[in-house]
Amino acid sequence: MKIELTRQNQGVHFQASSETSDIKVQIDGPESIGGEGKGVRPMEMVLMALGSCSVFDLTTILQKQRQHVEDIHVEVEGQRREEIPNIFTHIHIGFRLTGTIDREKAERAAELAVKKYCSVHDMLAQGGVEITYSLQIDSQ
Amino acid sequence: MKIELTRQNQGVHFQASSETSDIKVQIDGPESIGGEGKGVRPMEMVLMALGSCSVFDLTTILQKQRQHVEDIHVEVEGQRREEIPNIFTHIHIGFRLTGTIDREKAERAAELAVKKYCSVHDMLAQGGVEITYSLQIDSQ
Repeated sequence: MKIELTRQNQGVHFQASSETSDIKVQIDGPESIGGEGKGVRPMEMVLMALGSCSVFDLTTILQKQRQHVEDIHVEVEGQRREEIPNIFTHIHIGFRLTGTIDREKAERAAELAVKKYCSVHDMLAQGGVEITYSLQIDSQ
Repeated sequence: MKIELTRQNQGVHFQASSETSDIKVQIDGPESIGGEGKGVRPMEMVLMALGSCSVFDLTTILQKQRQHVEDIHVEVEGQRREEIPNIFTHIHIGFRLTGTIDREKAERAAELAVKKYCSVHDMLAQGGVEITYSLQIDSQ
């Protein structure tokens, strides 16, 4: 698996591309190092990677369970330590499902998705980041 | 730090947004789980996060060293294990700098950027991922 970053300005705006699609990702830094708000931050991408990795597996398992899912929304929030490097100490993933969904099955699906299948979770958890999740179901 | 993911289709295409810019990131999965190539993959985002985190610090240190950098290009390649979860076992970051650059100073800058300051590196390395880098300088 390979990605590339190309510089977009004299600051720290980079464009990322991969081999699996034509979609580009814009990445930029905070103002303190010359960022201009032209992209997402590297550490935000870690949260995006963790959330999407988990929700992909959650989505797939819910489909296999024949649950009627209308919508899925995910919020991922990370706390960083003050000391450099400012790694995450705790990350919380909040899943919000809308549909006609059996809570017990969905909870089992979320547990498997986050704790068993998600590669990003595994690497971060091994690295000492505490990762928790919650599941909200809005019935229709 | 917080990000959100909203579902874009009945497959696994999600749009990610953050609080620090208006820039969105499109994320999608492989075809095997219903992906349609409408975004980058979660594990690609981990490589993008690692590469950008490192190159931000490299860029900043080179500026402080008053090096004359014309361009910066980064390739990040990751090897994943077969066993699920398919975590990265090894990641290599290849920096290519163009400009009038002192090699010794640039090597010191790259070492600090990757090994000392990059939060993404720290979390992955603590998690057991072997991370290496190389530095190519094309003089002008």
